[in-house]
Amino acid sequence: MTTAKASVLEQFKAPLALRNYEVPSRPEPGAILVRTEMAGICGTDVHLWKGELTIALPVILGHETVGRIEALGDGIERDWSDQPLQVGDRVTWSPGLTCGVCFYCAEKRIPTRCVNRRAYGISQPCNHAPHFLGGYAEFHYLKPRSTIFKLPDDLRTESVIGAGCALNTALHGVERTGIGLRDIVVVQGAGPVGIAALAVAKSAGASQVIVIGAPKHRLEMAERFGADHVIDIDQVRTPAERIAAIRDFTRGYGADVVLECVGMPPAVVEGMEMCRDGGKYLVLGHYCDAGTVAWNPHIVTRKQLSVFGSWSSEPRHMKMAVDFLRATPNQFPFAEMVSHRFSLEQTNEALATSASGEATKSAIVPTLRWD
Amino acid sequence: MTTAKASVLEQFKAPLALRNYEVPSRPEPGAILVRTEMAGICGTDVHLWKGELTIALPVILGHETVGRIEALGDGIERDWSDQPLQVGDRVTWSPGLTCGVCFYCAEKRIPTRCVNRRAYGISQPCNHAPHFLGGYAEFHYLKPRSTIFKLPDDLRTESVIGAGCALNTALHGVERTGIGLRDIVVVQGAGPVGIAALAVAKSAGASQVIVIGAPKHRLEMAERFGADHVIDIDQVRTPAERIAAIRDFTRGYGADVVLECVGMPPAVVEGMEMCRDGGKYLVLGHYCDAGTVAWNPHIVTRKQLSVFGSWSSEPRHMKMAVDFLRATPNQFPFAEMVSHRFSLEQTNEALATSASGEATKSAIVPTLRWD
Amino acid sequence: MTTAKASVLEQFKAPLALRNYEVPSRPEPGAILVRTEMAGICGTDVHLWKGELTIALPVILGHETVGRIEALGDGIERDWSDQPLQVGDRVTWSPGLTCGVCFYCAEKRIPTRCVNRRAYGISQPCNHAPHFLGGYAEFHYLKPRSTIFKLPDDLRTESVIGAGCALNTALHGVERTGIGLRDIVVVQGAGPVGIAALAVAKSAGASQVIVIGAPKHRLEMAERFGADHVIDIDQVRTPAERIAAIRDFTRGYGADVVLECVGMPPAVVEGMEMCRDGGKYLVLGHYCDAGTVAWNPHIVTRKQLSVFGSWSSEPRHMKMAVDFLRATPNQFPFAEMVSHRFSLEQTNEALATSASGEATKSAIVPTLRWD
Amino acid sequence: MTTAKASVLEQFKAPLALRNYEVPSRPEPGAILVRTEMAGICGTDVHLWKGELTIALPVILGHETVGRIEALGDGIERDWSDQPLQVGDRVTWSPGLTCGVCFYCAEKRIPTRCVNRRAYGISQPCNHAPHFLGGYAEFHYLKPRSTIFKLPDDLRTESVIGAGCALNTALHGVERTGIGLRDIVVVQGAGPVGIAALAVAKSAGASQVIVIGAPKHRLEMAERFGADHVIDIDQVRTPAERIAAIRDFTRGYGADVVLECVGMPPAVVEGMEMCRDGGKYLVLGHYCDAGTVAWNPHIVTRKQLSVFGSWSSEPRHMKMAVDFLRATPNQFPFAEMVSHRFSLEQTNEALATSASGEATKSAIVPTLRWD
Repeated sequence: MTTAKASVLEQFKAPLALRNYEVPSRPEPGAILVRTEMAGICGTDVHLWKGELTIALPVILGHETVGRIEALGDGIERDWSDQPLQVGDRVTWSPGLTCGVCFYCAEKRIPTRCVNRRAYGISQPCNHAPHFLGGYAEFHYLKPRSTIFKLPDDLRTESVIGAGCALNTALHGVERTGIGLRDIVVVQGAGPVGIAALAVAKSAGASQVIVIGAPKHRLEMAERFGADHVIDIDQVRTPAERIAAIRDFTRGYGADVVLECVGMPPAVVEGMEMCRDGGKYLVLGHYCDAGTVAWNPHIVTRKQLSVFGSWSSEPRHMKMAVDFLRATPNQFPFAEMVSHRFSLEQTNEALATSASGEATKSAIVPTLRWD
Repeated sequence: MTTAKASVLEQFKAPLALRNYEVPSRPEPGAILVRTEMAGICGTDVHLWKGELTIALPVILGHETVGRIEALGDGIERDWSDQPLQVGDRVTWSPGLTCGVCFYCAEKRIPTRCVNRRAYGISQPCNHAPHFLGGYAEFHYLKPRSTIFKLPDDLRTESVIGAGCALNTALHGVERTGIGLRDIVVVQGAGPVGIAALAVAKSAGASQVIVIGAPKHRLEMAERFGADHVIDIDQVRTPAERIAAIRDFTRGYGADVVLECVGMPPAVVEGMEMCRDGGKYLVLGHYCDAGTVAWNPHIVTRKQLSVFGSWSSEPRHMKMAVDFLRATPNQFPFAEMVSHRFSLEQTNEALATSASGEATKSAIVPTLRWD
Repeated sequence: MTTAKASVLEQFKAPLALRNYEVPSRPEPGAILVRTEMAGICGTDVHLWKGELTIALPVILGHETVGRIEALGDGIERDWSDQPLQVGDRVTWSPGLTCGVCFYCAEKRIPTRCVNRRAYGISQPCNHAPHFLGGYAEFHYLKPRSTIFKLPDDLRTESVIGAGCALNTALHGVERTGIGLRDIVVVQGAGPVGIAALAVAKSAGASQVIVIGAPKHRLEMAERFGADHVIDIDQVRTPAERIAAIRDFTRGYGADVVLECVGMPPAVVEGMEMCRDGGKYLVLGHYCDAGTVAWNPHIVTRKQLSVFGSWSSEPRHMKMAVDFLRATPNQFPFAEMVSHRFSLEQTNEALATSASGEATKSAIVPTLRWD
Repeated sequence: MTTAKASVLEQFKAPLALRNYEVPSRPEPGAILVRTEMAGICGTDVHLWKGELTIALPVILGHETVGRIEALGDGIERDWSDQPLQVGDRVTWSPGLTCGVCFYCAEKRIPTRCVNRRAYGISQPCNHAPHFLGGYAEFHYLKPRSTIFKLPDDLRTESVIGAGCALNTALHGVERTGIGLRDIVVVQGAGPVGIAALAVAKSAGASQVIVIGAPKHRLEMAERFGADHVIDIDQVRTPAERIAAIRDFTRGYGADVVLECVGMPPAVVEGMEMCRDGGKYLVLGHYCDAGTVAWNPHIVTRKQLSVFGSWSSEPRHMKMAVDFLRATPNQFPFAEMVSHRFSLEQTNEALATSASGEATKSAIVPTLRWD
């Protein structure tokens, strides 16, 4: 029997614990065992750690992961895109497993809301075999029907982790919203989701993308990703000033599309004011419940707005993300987003660094030596 | 010089005053003078009277009007649908005049938000000639480029007034939202807009329409219009109970589409909870600013909602409305909505009756004798 | 060992042969054995018989079937809509089995073009067990992952067979095309697909539906289903006359939407001329390859058309169809479409009757005695 | 009285004649007189010259024009985008004048099919004053309600003429078709419309654009504009080979979107085969009637295609074009498209050069001296 290490959330707001679990000796048919190479720390992980979404414990966090195939179960020979798979291949995967037959999957065609959805690193508890169902661990087990993507040699692991689930999420959200050719787009937020939304908006035909956020190092990153303008909320401190700034960029009308990537309710109220009449607003940053805000629904009528939400992403968005990252490494340097690397033993420090906003993006590298 | 009577809003929250204005002796080229037959009282008129929208005074209220052509200006020979026009024809018209060339009309194709829009009975002050620019008067002047519709003989004036601008508004709103074939639809509100939304939803392919409102006489009207279920808010008194009722009608998932026709902010919070995941929500009743409500934008993300607003309507919706009323008088008895008739001298009483919710729909009939 | 009868297509254009096959003693896990009550004869069956689609033989034709559950495999307890299933229940099912994970199912979200799709009665050969994979037989075997619908007691078997796959197909096609509220719709063809398209168009908000076809008994059926006008091609014999007739109904502009339900290429050329500029055209009747026609693509540009195709349907359309039939038995009397019933021994006669156009709809009733 | 030169089409297929017309001494209110700087020769001009569209003669051809304001009529102070206008400003304009109130403008919202549409250089005869209603002349008269765009100093005249109406047309067509993020796009044709469609597709989020055409210098231009692959029809000579080549680029499935920019009917048949199932096809190159082709409509059903046409463009597309050209001069070097310049006296030679395909783009420069 071989065992391996995993960093486990056993109690909300308490330090993650380093545990040893038995490594499955052989994957069941259709499953794959992966040796983790790098696991991203998503902002959602911090919220999960705080208990802001109801999930069952214990759980190995980590839903943005790259690893190499250690063993293949019977009958799994190809990835989701029909590429052949073999031991040693570098892969990533969609966090969510969906059923394909429920009301939401089949009747309403929104698999992101599958009633049987289970996400690695979030809603797959680790107290029973095969245990390794999250990224913060030496191994990762991929159950049958997982959606796996073989990574091409010219796509760096850092690109995939730097983009994280933020890119899939942004691809899904922008797809739902629709950016028209030559639209003026505002991105509220300069964290990983905001940067990803910026990259997607630029690629989708936006004529200008204006990013609003802080701190300075994130806005500089936004500029490296091609932001046409940035507004520093540490300098332009009131919503009224920021709304006025957007009006100045848009002949007084407001933006065609505003993408919320902040996760704080007042941003939504502010952002709707930044839309032109007939504009579109995407609530993308509210994966977690951050409470209420005083909001006047009259604005939706008066401005004839369209407001969209999107939850997580589908496997096809992960495929789009992988292709996108491979095609645009210079235009959108997601690999450079990975600013901090930690060993498994340092997971709590890694989470804290992410929570502080100090890191653009932190990652766990299980092979890093702790000393 | 001939003069005629008009009921004029000169000061917010003060009684309307009966004034005499000079009747234009001859309409300018492209314009039409109409003798008012019936003018509907819209819920918006009550809000305008209270000063809840910023408009210039004095103004003759009334933006839902039917009359007979008294005189035609040069060069106007046909209505918006290319029907010939002559003196004596019964007509109605869109309240809004738009410019066709501004940013919103031409570049963004949302003429309802035309920057030069002026609406009869709302934003056309009456202190200068031709004065008669609202429905609560013996005459109505239609400026050049008004969108006028000749009424066919088999369409009753009461049908047009009973439907009022509510039907145009509902047609526009439902068009923007999109009701899929066999969708389950909830209508929040059983006033004129709610009844119109019900009629439109039934016609657009909804499999079930559930109407939530009060008082009893309005819900009975909803049933006459084909509501599959009604929920009386005087009986089912809490949002939680009403949300649970909708879940019971929808296998636990919520409705595909929810149409808000209430105008009170808490209804929006409640209504979004009534949507299934991936559902659509229309904010239709918030033409006026009714203040804020504590709202959690997380619901838009979590349920992957699409939320739409729509402002007023375009001329083509008025054309749709006229055709719709003519085609469905038995299925949707809008003529029976006109529950109260008042003379011009009784306009204040008419407004009060509308404000109280006692009337399904009140109307001014200038030829009614006051005694 | 029990055997039962099936009518088998062994050679294109040759008479179907009555064969006996072994009835599975017990369905595998997830599968169901059904005793056939009624099997519809679809126009496509005639084309399949002629060899106009490439399919593997031998095959038991019949993809529109109702039966009663004879035996349930382990683990299948509910139908596609989550209704409990038990022996004796009356059910129907989608013909197509799709994989859920291929390029078309998952990446492009068009499961009708699933690369692994297999349809009962079409692409499921019968030379190996479980043999009973088409409707023209005493039993029908439903493999695991079939999409099964329990029929409510108040929905007649004749309604389901009368609607056949035509209704699912029309629901899918009209969904793809989009009928706007108050659109004027033309249906080319008065066979089962045309009648179904008429019913769907009426329900989807069309203001007028004009049906073009023959013979007289089909046009009378169209009128029973609510056609606003019918054009008899035996009387209005040239395309030019028919196009002129449509112009007369549409103020000279042409129809908003034209739905082709004929299956003959010249109808497509004629039908595009019936569209107004900016109109929509659905090629719905061309499930089979009926050859080429001289066509001028300039019309697509000049009229700024949108032209749609739709292939078969998804399971969710079958669910919509079942609900639709149950809700509208009087408005759309699909049960009356079943004009001819045949025993299994009379299958060749049944096909011939369908091919001749004499029947509105023929059905096989295995319990009918041949004498 | 001042006169100026114009090159006039007086008889189809006969040489254009150089005529002198009186220059309006002062534009009427709302009109503008422009001194022509450069007029593009569109492929459509060649078709018009051949009489392939029914237009009234005599006409001054030329609907792609840049000039400087010579005189402003009363009341016209701003361009379509609200920029101030004054004598000496360099401007361009949409060819089409629409009415804003007809069935197509107002009721169906497709102003490109305005029943009163008149296009400069096409459907505005020159035999009466103000004569100068096309580009091949020393002056151009812009009637009231023309849609005029002031050109920013950093946008070269050659860019505007190099893009010509092809760019507006491509913007409109791609807008109607919709290119999804990361779609694989095929462009059939490497002439001005094909190059413009390539530029628009790249900007709209396409992951790959494959251009099919000839001759070699046009394919080289396509590569300069960022084509990911080109297929030379002089080398890959059969439709079957070209379809196979597209399959090779697309994992065997075909392209997500195919844009036809050829104008020859067989290209449409070939192009639909290049679409993946569920793909989209745009018929963009068929502004003129080039006759019929043998076509099998079964493909639309079997592949579940969506096929779109688009006619010309709206003023808002010209605005998008101007902004687009200004923003992307290096990525899309439209200015380099202008390969040949001719004086007014050389117009017939210019048309011949365009017809031969020898020129990437020809232009008339009235100030060029003929010797």
